[in-house]
Amino acid sequence: MNATAIKVDNGVNVEALLGARQALTEAPEAARFKWRASCSWVRGTHSRSTVQSFFGLGAEQAHKTEFTYEADHPEVFAAEDQGATPVEYVLVGLASCLTAGVAAVAQNRGIQLRSVKASVEAGMDLQGILGIDADVRNGFDGIKVVFDIDADASKEDIAALVAQSQRRSAVFDIVTNPTNVAVEIK
Amino acid sequence: MNATAIKVDNGVNVEALLGARQALTEAPEAARFKWRASCSWVRGTHSRSTVQSFFGLGAEQAHKTEFTYEADHPEVFAAEDQGATPVEYVLVGLASCLTAGVAAVAQNRGIQLRSVKASVEAGMDLQGILGIDADVRNGFDGIKVVFDIDADASKEDIAALVAQSQRRSAVFDIVTNPTNVAVEIK
Repeated sequence: MNATAIKVDNGVNVEALLGARQALTEAPEAARFKWRASCSWVRGTHSRSTVQSFFGLGAEQAHKTEFTYEADHPEVFAAEDQGATPVEYVLVGLASCLTAGVAAVAQNRGIQLRSVKASVEAGMDLQGILGIDADVRNGFDGIKVVFDIDADASKEDIAALVAQSQRRSAVFDIVTNPTNVAVEIK
Repeated sequence: MNATAIKVDNGVNVEALLGARQALTEAPEAARFKWRASCSWVRGTHSRSTVQSFFGLGAEQAHKTEFTYEADHPEVFAAEDQGATPVEYVLVGLASCLTAGVAAVAQNRGIQLRSVKASVEAGMDLQGILGIDADVRNGFDGIKVVFDIDADASKEDIAALVAQSQRRSAVFDIVTNPTNVAVEIK
């Protein structure tokens, strides 16, 4: 097998990312991004959020289309289950961030991926949000992510890939570390 | 105006929620939930996550339908922009959690809502995830939520409503406090 004849292609443009790193090292102001979401209440616990504009590279930017997300509580909470719960959106963010990271790091390391699946599960004791027990936190008591990766690499290389994805993941950082949230009323 | 003749209806079944609080106070084991998401890599930084099953009230549960979410990076990151970025999913979770809380608390306090809009913006310095500066965190450097609420209530009551929503919000807690994430490889 001639390794040089096999072109690794995970669909990640690593050259562009390395170019961006170089460009942003020279112009750190351009690295300051602002991400946004806008949420409108529909009825009950059902809301509709949209995502389109963001700020970065020193200018207003926009996704190609506006993305729309319905959120609700499930029927066991006497709601209408019109969408995933808000906490499940956080899990989608975490799983997709780590998965994108695995693809990008694999491309950079010349590892061809065949399939990547991340299963995420988070425990939550409702005694927190229901105000039953003040010692129980409102959020998750922990999150477990299990990766199932089929790639042209050793077990050790796959483990290193996942570890590097964690180290570079925005959502992993957001979930594992505190972030200040300021809430205002217009 | 006869206040008793006006029935406040925000579409939240507060009686059911208060009943659940009573029931879960007596059977705290039933309050232990597990929320899940499953993410499959598509190509590049594009992934597809699904949300359907969860565990709670002592048994396996499921949403009425399977919800599917595409995540990707935008074109300015040399990606194909097939969905919101993972960090934007976190903002959707935060905005929808606080908004559902406003509706539930308003119902409990007899406040009729006419409209609720939450605009969320989060700063992020890409020098973190790009590995340019080790002192810059990967995640958000802060989040600002601005509520615009039209309701049958005073400014003070609306402020109290939003404050109580924050105190009971699962995603507000997840974002503002650290949560342990264990990552394994199958």
